[in-house]
Amino acid sequence: MSQNVAQFDAWIRDQFKALNTELESLYDHCENPMQIADTGNELKQQLKQEGESHIEKLLIEGNTDQGFDRNFDLLGNIGMYMAACRRHELTEPSRETRSPLEKASALALQVGASLGVTPRFATSHLTTHCKAVDGEPKRFTSLKDEALFIDFNTLAVLAYKRAADALVRILPMGISHPVAPYLLMDATSALKDVAHWNKKLFDELDGDAFFNHVRPYYKPFRVGQHEYRGANAGDFAGINEIDMLLGLCQANQSFYSQLLVDKFLYMMPEDQARLRDVMRRQSLLDQILDGLNSNPEAPWLKEVIQALVEAIDAHGNTAHQHHEQLVKRFIVAPSIKLEDNDKTHITASGPPLEVLLRSLNRLKELRMAANNSQLPSRYHDVQRLKCWLESH
Amino acid sequence: MSQNVAQFDAWIRDQFKALNTELESLYDHCENPMQIADTGNELKQQLKQEGESHIEKLLIEGNTDQGFDRNFDLLGNIGMYMAACRRHELTEPSRETRSPLEKASALALQVGASLGVTPRFATSHLTTHCKAVDGEPKRFTSLKDEALFIDFNTLAVLAYKRAADALVRILPMGISHPVAPYLLMDATSALKDVAHWNKKLFDELDGDAFFNHVRPYYKPFRVGQHEYRGANAGDFAGINEIDMLLGLCQANQSFYSQLLVDKFLYMMPEDQARLRDVMRRQSLLDQILDGLNSNPEAPWLKEVIQALVEAIDAHGNTAHQHHEQLVKRFIVAPSIKLEDNDKTHITASGPPLEVLLRSLNRLKELRMAANNSQLPSRYHDVQRLKCWLESH
Amino acid sequence: MSQNVAQFDAWIRDQFKALNTELESLYDHCENPMQIADTGNELKQQLKQEGESHIEKLLIEGNTDQGFDRNFDLLGNIGMYMAACRRHELTEPSRETRSPLEKASALALQVGASLGVTPRFATSHLTTHCKAVDGEPKRFTSLKDEALFIDFNTLAVLAYKRAADALVRILPMGISHPVAPYLLMDATSALKDVAHWNKKLFDELDGDAFFNHVRPYYKPFRVGQHEYRGANAGDFAGINEIDMLLGLCQANQSFYSQLLVDKFLYMMPEDQARLRDVMRRQSLLDQILDGLNSNPEAPWLKEVIQALVEAIDAHGNTAHQHHEQLVKRFIVAPSIKLEDNDKTHITASGPPLEVLLRSLNRLKELRMAANNSQLPSRYHDVQRLKCWLESH
Amino acid sequence: MSQNVAQFDAWIRDQFKALNTELESLYDHCENPMQIADTGNELKQQLKQEGESHIEKLLIEGNTDQGFDRNFDLLGNIGMYMAACRRHELTEPSRETRSPLEKASALALQVGASLGVTPRFATSHLTTHCKAVDGEPKRFTSLKDEALFIDFNTLAVLAYKRAADALVRILPMGISHPVAPYLLMDATSALKDVAHWNKKLFDELDGDAFFNHVRPYYKPFRVGQHEYRGANAGDFAGINEIDMLLGLCQANQSFYSQLLVDKFLYMMPEDQARLRDVMRRQSLLDQILDGLNSNPEAPWLKEVIQALVEAIDAHGNTAHQHHEQLVKRFIVAPSIKLEDNDKTHITASGPPLEVLLRSLNRLKELRMAANNSQLPSRYHDVQRLKCWLESH
Ligand code: HEM
Ligand code: HEM
Repeated sequence: MSQNVAQFDAWIRDQFKALNTELESLYDHCENPMQIADTGNELKQQLKQEGESHIEKLLIEGNTDQGFDRNFDLLGNIGMYMAACRRHELTEPSRETRSPLEKASALALQVGASLGVTPRFATSHLTTHCKAVDGEPKRFTSLKDEALFIDFNTLAVLAYKRAADALVRILPMGISHPVAPYLLMDATSALKDVAHWNKKLFDELDGDAFFNHVRPYYKPFRVGQHEYRGANAGDFAGINEIDMLLGLCQANQSFYSQLLVDKFLYMMPEDQARLRDVMRRQSLLDQILDGLNSNPEAPWLKEVIQALVEAIDAHGNTAHQHHEQLVKRFIVAPSIKLEDNDKTHITASGPPLEVLLRSLNRLKELRMAANNSQLPSRYHDVQRLKCWLESH
Repeated sequence: MSQNVAQFDAWIRDQFKALNTELESLYDHCENPMQIADTGNELKQQLKQEGESHIEKLLIEGNTDQGFDRNFDLLGNIGMYMAACRRHELTEPSRETRSPLEKASALALQVGASLGVTPRFATSHLTTHCKAVDGEPKRFTSLKDEALFIDFNTLAVLAYKRAADALVRILPMGISHPVAPYLLMDATSALKDVAHWNKKLFDELDGDAFFNHVRPYYKPFRVGQHEYRGANAGDFAGINEIDMLLGLCQANQSFYSQLLVDKFLYMMPEDQARLRDVMRRQSLLDQILDGLNSNPEAPWLKEVIQALVEAIDAHGNTAHQHHEQLVKRFIVAPSIKLEDNDKTHITASGPPLEVLLRSLNRLKELRMAANNSQLPSRYHDVQRLKCWLESH
Repeated sequence: MSQNVAQFDAWIRDQFKALNTELESLYDHCENPMQIADTGNELKQQLKQEGESHIEKLLIEGNTDQGFDRNFDLLGNIGMYMAACRRHELTEPSRETRSPLEKASALALQVGASLGVTPRFATSHLTTHCKAVDGEPKRFTSLKDEALFIDFNTLAVLAYKRAADALVRILPMGISHPVAPYLLMDATSALKDVAHWNKKLFDELDGDAFFNHVRPYYKPFRVGQHEYRGANAGDFAGINEIDMLLGLCQANQSFYSQLLVDKFLYMMPEDQARLRDVMRRQSLLDQILDGLNSNPEAPWLKEVIQALVEAIDAHGNTAHQHHEQLVKRFIVAPSIKLEDNDKTHITASGPPLEVLLRSLNRLKELRMAANNSQLPSRYHDVQRLKCWLESH
Repeated sequence: MSQNVAQFDAWIRDQFKALNTELESLYDHCENPMQIADTGNELKQQLKQEGESHIEKLLIEGNTDQGFDRNFDLLGNIGMYMAACRRHELTEPSRETRSPLEKASALALQVGASLGVTPRFATSHLTTHCKAVDGEPKRFTSLKDEALFIDFNTLAVLAYKRAADALVRILPMGISHPVAPYLLMDATSALKDVAHWNKKLFDELDGDAFFNHVRPYYKPFRVGQHEYRGANAGDFAGINEIDMLLGLCQANQSFYSQLLVDKFLYMMPEDQARLRDVMRRQSLLDQILDGLNSNPEAPWLKEVIQALVEAIDAHGNTAHQHHEQLVKRFIVAPSIKLEDNDKTHITASGPPLEVLLRSLNRLKELRMAANNSQLPSRYHDVQRLKCWLESH
């Protein structure tokens, strides 16, 4: 790490976090926590200027040749700074045509482009790739609810990844391999872990604290000319690998591929590569259906159909939980209470809440193989497997 | 190649080309060649439907696991089809919110995402990566001017690439290596080739034929929801590698990095990787300036400064030529003649002509190290080298 | 798959397997199962010639441009054919200076080199990357003990890989991250699965059947001029990633790095890349020791030290099991019974049994952090952690 | 660069070079320049110990996580140190079973393995990837003939690479593409540059100085247990890409693929990847022959056959030059003068001189498409093209 990079990192881990925490506590005393424009102006300016002076030095130094890991880390720091400026309404994408944080934009664009990712912080910066120093990961604030949100998120992401690893490892063997059922069981067990962490989140996260003091750091903001949607917990390849390998979502459906296209640059390059590869593969569900069609009494079918159906159910379950519990409680419920003109931009990805919910619901139904003829859901195929099981 | 892929390819090389050629000949007899909406409707429908029926089969087949080369080729075919539909105004991005070519969009999104490139045809599909079969590259039409335009474009791109190769090979040696001047000379010689092919284009391309019958295939169009700007001849990494290695453009200037960010997904993945790498390196110009600062009488300086200055001049020259000759003659001049309501969307990349020209002019001045204090041009640094040469 | 490739694959899955199985049954009736030179000559010739005629066609076709997966598969088929020829003593590396299977060698060299792996079958061809067709993986014979050996091996390899995945995911977070203990627990649980599969192997595999009819297919053989050691179950990156991340083996110890160097080309390219990356990282053990040194009362230490110690013990346990149970029972015991001149080449990797055992024992002791001052074992460091735990 | 890495690098560039140079000057006064065992013992010990103390520090530091470029550079430094020890006969592979330079071996094995290359210096360390500092590349000695040898070597390597680039770029277009002849001409022109640099070398290099004071640094030596052949100027992918793309050598001939297999790990990873890719492609010669067979009057043939034949001749010419001039003058001639017991190990790559020459001659004949029925030479195919040209 160059010295300038190290100093910026230290600032993010220390003063930056303290300033945000102090501002959140001021906002907490505002009458309307959505109306923060006139609160804490001095602290806000301090945050803006201190960050800027670090970034200025880095821009002059121009030394971005420090290997992927360090540059990715640096991008996270710039992104956290820009996101905080946006949360404190020092910038606001709908009132500007380009980010007023010119230096930060320039550095973010350079580093992001040289890494092959969006020029902003991504979820992985805060979760799977958030380096802890002496027990302390990088955080926006020292609020308990931010830590809780992020830690359970991270655990759920890691469990999804483990499920994806297991499914991917079936591909070179084929679904009829004697070892395939064990990999499916491993995936199912990992998906149950996801459910466990989701439940923890549901039980332990404070809805108001999250909505008012954590989520606002995940809003969209501009870097240079373009606005980039907020980071969201789903910005890793694993979840979509599972979707496609289980056959529940399909890359040749444009609803789904559009979603993937929009998501690619929010993922780490290694995740991009994995996801690309999976997009080209035949799903495990389709492999089994082929098997069933050519010989419905093949001896290898029973164990693996059982295991696949369990994996599918476990995946559907996490999707149901995400939508009906997490999204409903932590996004929808608090939004309903809002005044109309506070409702804009409450979602991380920009579109109005209803649009977002419709899209999330569609995903949920696909993942649950729901009986919905409007959707390319695999309901009938999954039912066919379940019936087969009953008769075998 | 699967049979469906092969049949679609054969159609693109044969009927598709014939239909476009016939339509162009009809348009040629229109009073206003910009007003083609009501001409050749039957041929247009034939083109649309034949293409669609090929794409439908591919979507059902779902077999995208054919290796990078073949999928890239397939994406080019889908993209050419969609671009032709747009050229014939079967689709028009400003009147739609999503492409009416739903099947083609779905396939393009899947294939593009799985390759890591925009879901449309890119310049490389028509130039450096356009497979010829029995002497015939893939083309929209059999018009002489399309062939001429594309062939000279390809030759210029290849020469730029050779220049970039030579410059990149200096990096591991450092600018003070005894062999560096030879690599710079090789770059200069390649840049002179670029100028040669540019001149040929200027001399031999028919402006009207190009403007009315070739360029319209390069317009922006939608794939799924998003509109993608048109392909342009600069969508390869080499030119930007040269910009940055010669020190004339800098990745920490947001004008330039924004431009790179917007361009990345229009390049082949291998080009993306090369460009990313170069973005992290110290330019040759800066390496020499460091050398000059620490020991202005070092014996290795003379030969290499001479060679660098020549490379810089050669690069500036191609930029000048591009702007003052090619753009002026083949875009600006014919546009001036247009009625106002024909002027929209005449450029491939979407923005109004003035905006585009301003941006191109800026690039030209940077590449020429022009004396313009509004720009981060390297004028003074390049002058310093030239003065030093005079006194040594 | 080209037709020739498909026909060769079908032959390997069918006639080849049948011929080997028949030959094994003849050998079973030999007085000395080590002396098979004069048994089943006709079948042996048939196997040799049929394979050769397939390979000849492939060599002429010269079409190796089928993507990584298919070429890797093809290499496995060539390798299985050559290994069977060696098992039936149609070739014998110590009596030849180059493989008499010239065509097979030529094809294996071409394909292996183009893939970046040794030009022979590797363990992954038979385990993690062995495609099953309609429930049947590729196998040398249809003997129950081969299936059993390979299936449990595969399950153990997959469990090791899962443990390695979990440990690798700690690296970007650092050992002090609140989520690190969970990843360590996941690793431990996977290592316990390894132990489970090892025990199954120990309990269920028939020692004589394995030694006489399975293991001989894993002998070293020549391809072209060079002799390549046999495939062994450890030819994947995961086990060494675990060794190094837990800190038990170190890449700057030449005993260990020599072993890695000799192993690289027997791994899949993706495994090579992972292993290379891990070689450059600080181990989790060293990260904790650094933490302990700088602040032995840091609150994050307790949970993670506990979890690391459990992972270390679990890994040591699998190593103990491998050496004291699997190797002793399935290699050492049957070897002792052999006549002296049958003892040569009983091990897969060529060196005499004592040398091999010494090396395996050393590995075992390193993995167990054994109290052996002759070795760079982490005994004292691990003890320090255990003591710290007792006092906290 | 860590401080230890920087200090070692400074030592290599300074004292190490001075010590070697001084030793060479002592050897120059020996009666028999092959008998240097008892000369300069103090200097030799100094060199050995100073290097060792640097390496020791690096081994303890254990910090190999510095990105590819820096580690590759470090490996070059370790390798140069070990090669010098071997040149001064502090080590001698035939009298040892493992390198007595234990620390250097350990570090070289770790770094080499983590990079995916042989654990010794390779030609690229001294040529295309030899960083110059203030005008000074890394060198063993400051002898004029070493500089001359390496610089002309580098220029020839770079010219071969340029030729290979041009040929590779034909692949995605196919040989019948209108632009292919220009790429072939570029390749030919680059090959003529190779000839130019070869001639310079022939004219300007002092045979005795080279044989006695430069070449000995290129001998084989052990790292850990294994002996690694010496670096040679051909250890880059370009030359073999040319061989195969022109169709003169074929990857399915085991003589040639064996040679490639033995060479892979002596190349940079990026070169390995390029070469692997080319091994899977149809040669340009075969593409043309296919074209000729299906339509001998196709209009695209003439220009491209002309251009291919010229490229083939230019390549054959460099091969002829290499063998008949460079090898004869700088290796064979001085060897003849030697006493018999000095003749062992005079070649870099280990085998006896006659064996080496035979293999080199074979390569020469293949590259010249010589009329030799013992070889899979393309004589008849190339003749066919030449005849066709005469009649068209
Ligand atoms: C308080 C907890 C959570 C809330 C309120 C929440 C809410 C949301 C919302 C509103 C979106 C829509 C996208 C956006 O606004 O940009 C979203 C997307 C997503 N979330 Fe969550 N989320 C939570 C936790 C999690 C967890 C623990 C995971 C598991 C890793 C997860 C996985 C995803 C995924 C994968 C997406 C992308 C869309 C999809 O593929 O379903 N979320 N989430
Ligand atoms: C019948 C069961 C097994 C026997 C008899 C056996 C025997 C051996 C032997 C003799 C070697 C020495 C190398 C050689 O000969 O080339 C070896 C190496 C190895 N085996 Fe096994 N093995 C068995 C099962 C397994 C299993 C299930 C695993 C788990 C994946 C495993 C992992 C390894 C590893 C990693 C090595 C490489 C050396 C090392 O890193 O320890 N083996 N085995």
